[in-house]
Amino acid sequence: MPTISHRAQILPQSPIRKLTPYAEKAAKEGKTIYHLNIGQPDIKTPEIAVQAVKDFTPKVLEYTKSEGIDSLREKVVEYYKKHDIKVESSDIIITCGGSEALTYVIATVANADDEIIIPEPYYANYISFSEAFDAVCVPITSSFDDNFALPPIEEFEKKITPRTKAFLICNPGNPTGYLYSKEEILQLATIAKKHDIFLIFDEVYREFVYDGATHYSIMQVEGIEQNAIMIDSVSKRFSMCGARIGWVVSKNKDVMMSVLKFAQARLSPPTYSQIGAERAFDVPETYFEEVLKEYTQRRNVLIEELRKVEGVRVSMPKGAFYCIAELPVENAEDFCIWLLGHFSVNNETVMLAPAEGFYATEGLGRNQVRIAYVLEKEKIVKAIHILGEALKEYNKH
Amino acid sequence: MPTISHRAQILPQSPIRKLTPYAEKAAKEGKTIYHLNIGQPDIKTPEIAVQAVKDFTPKVLEYTKSEGIDSLREKVVEYYKKHDIKVESSDIIITCGGSEALTYVIATVANADDEIIIPEPYYANYISFSEAFDAVCVPITSSFDDNFALPPIEEFEKKITPRTKAFLICNPGNPTGYLYSKEEILQLATIAKKHDIFLIFDEVYREFVYDGATHYSIMQVEGIEQNAIMIDSVSKRFSMCGARIGWVVSKNKDVMMSVLKFAQARLSPPTYSQIGAERAFDVPETYFEEVLKEYTQRRNVLIEELRKVEGVRVSMPKGAFYCIAELPVENAEDFCIWLLGHFSVNNETVMLAPAEGFYATEGLGRNQVRIAYVLEKEKIVKAIHILGEALKEYNKH
Repeated sequence: MPTISHRAQILPQSPIRKLTPYAEKAAKEGKTIYHLNIGQPDIKTPEIAVQAVKDFTPKVLEYTKSEGIDSLREKVVEYYKKHDIKVESSDIIITCGGSEALTYVIATVANADDEIIIPEPYYANYISFSEAFDAVCVPITSSFDDNFALPPIEEFEKKITPRTKAFLICNPGNPTGYLYSKEEILQLATIAKKHDIFLIFDEVYREFVYDGATHYSIMQVEGIEQNAIMIDSVSKRFSMCGARIGWVVSKNKDVMMSVLKFAQARLSPPTYSQIGAERAFDVPETYFEEVLKEYTQRRNVLIEELRKVEGVRVSMPKGAFYCIAELPVENAEDFCIWLLGHFSVNNETVMLAPAEGFYATEGLGRNQVRIAYVLEKEKIVKAIHILGEALKEYNKH
Repeated sequence: MPTISHRAQILPQSPIRKLTPYAEKAAKEGKTIYHLNIGQPDIKTPEIAVQAVKDFTPKVLEYTKSEGIDSLREKVVEYYKKHDIKVESSDIIITCGGSEALTYVIATVANADDEIIIPEPYYANYISFSEAFDAVCVPITSSFDDNFALPPIEEFEKKITPRTKAFLICNPGNPTGYLYSKEEILQLATIAKKHDIFLIFDEVYREFVYDGATHYSIMQVEGIEQNAIMIDSVSKRFSMCGARIGWVVSKNKDVMMSVLKFAQARLSPPTYSQIGAERAFDVPETYFEEVLKEYTQRRNVLIEELRKVEGVRVSMPKGAFYCIAELPVENAEDFCIWLLGHFSVNNETVMLAPAEGFYATEGLGRNQVRIAYVLEKEKIVKAIHILGEALKEYNKH
């Protein structure tokens, strides 16, 4: 029998993989599950985007250009202008989701055994995208007690080796909800430039910043145009995760030529999705204002409710729609499985993402979970109530 | 300035890359270009598939399951039943086009420096997908004079090393149009089994076989279930290239678990496209009968017209919608560029794909082109007339 590759063997599975059969069982038994485990927002997709696809009647559903439909790339340029980010359409290549964008960027910057420095906890799939190309993720632990702020910049310098090819930063952060400050980003930029390291910034949650804070983009930093690579997507911004439309942005021509070559090999991003995505950019600004108001309230409710639960620790996230909470349990994964499999209130239960899978360092995050506040406030209140009751019951044993 | 990876540097570009600026210039000058260079069929996408997408009005355009929508996977199973291929939906993972399917499969079977044996000329992107994972493509030259039949099986055995992980076969073949016989496939299967080598069969052109021939699938070979991996797609079958819906089929559980892990990392295939693809399988059999009739006529016209052109050599392809033609020129790429840039009849010209990019062996295919017969018969006649006139003119110099 032929054997699969080493990378295929070690590739990590989803942090919720072990929970899935229990969730399926609970659903089969007719239980309602509050899904706080995944970043699938319940916000309505803009109607104009949905309508644009409905209005599209191709005679032949053709490939588009490998780098994406020109008018979509132009829309992205216009969108960035409003965010004070100056790029041209030739700096943009449309991909099948932010995931494909990340895949091509990592393949572009890292040889096998090259290193990518990532603050942990991180978006778990960064590891999968890196390991696909035999690149090594080097974690730098950010601190729960410090709201997962950027670790001291000396920690980054200490980890730099001749094999270090990139820093990979999610801003605002999934799973932490941390919003990096301009100062932190400039610190990273300075040492990246000094050591000829790429700065890969995943900014798909750009709009999701709270309390009047301002998002600062890696593309706004002057003098590091050859280092900066930005990942972006319509998935969260316009609540159209199923479109799978993302893109790479960079002023570095070598990077863009490489990404284009990968893009040409796979021929085209999905046509329908590009048509919907392009139109989504025409939503009025009030769309984001409402979405932001909704998420701010959800966050406030979530944190308020979590703080009422004995033994739970959580800090106020500033961006995205996630937070990391510490639970009064030894092993959060065991608890999450038990919660799905053996606990309910009025036949309702909760699914959370155990946080251990968001850390590379052995043993970290074992008593933590990631909570995505992607449900209506009333549901969040109910879900956290169930969580509180469950913790009481669980800790009786 | 940071440097890009080795693979990003060596990744091949599209075989038509050098032609593109000339095609753009010709189009700008108002010339009509007959595109025989790309496998983008002009056949109408089934209306029921287009309508299914038009009828879809999501409140939230959500991710689907990473392995694809269950009902789509069931449709694929039903479709295979009609082709005497027995698989279950758990043997199928939906991907973003056959391209993503190939990418995940190559990442699954080959470590860096592992070898994949491919008959040349081959689909050029096989090289890109392999080099993305630092795998090495080992070509075995098939012969123009033998219609690009499978080279003697001894040639394959000679090339097998401890690093050989897979044979990669396109059946029927792009760019050759060759349809492999059951006997050829069984020969490959026997040595693959003997040497524990994966058999990756790209069967996206399954329906496109002519002259009453029957397509024999790798999934029909008994006793090699652990070696066989099939790539498939709706792109050509239903003329919906822009959907980007393909899939991997295998009974090998290790392979499928690996493909699933890659699929989970990128979250979901595009939702709209899956909805259209699912419905496309409901087209009546007459759809294929008509398509096949049309392509048979196009092929016949193409070959007939090509044979009239002095100095052109071509054989009758048995499948897909490509053929390789030898032109009476030293360098077909130079000729194709000249044709686009400096020749027209009634302000019309032709774009062909130089075949050198479909060969790994240095110098092979230099006087060959790939012709895709994806246009109406009248256009093919006109295009080949222009080609003939162009060759006369070109060879005057």
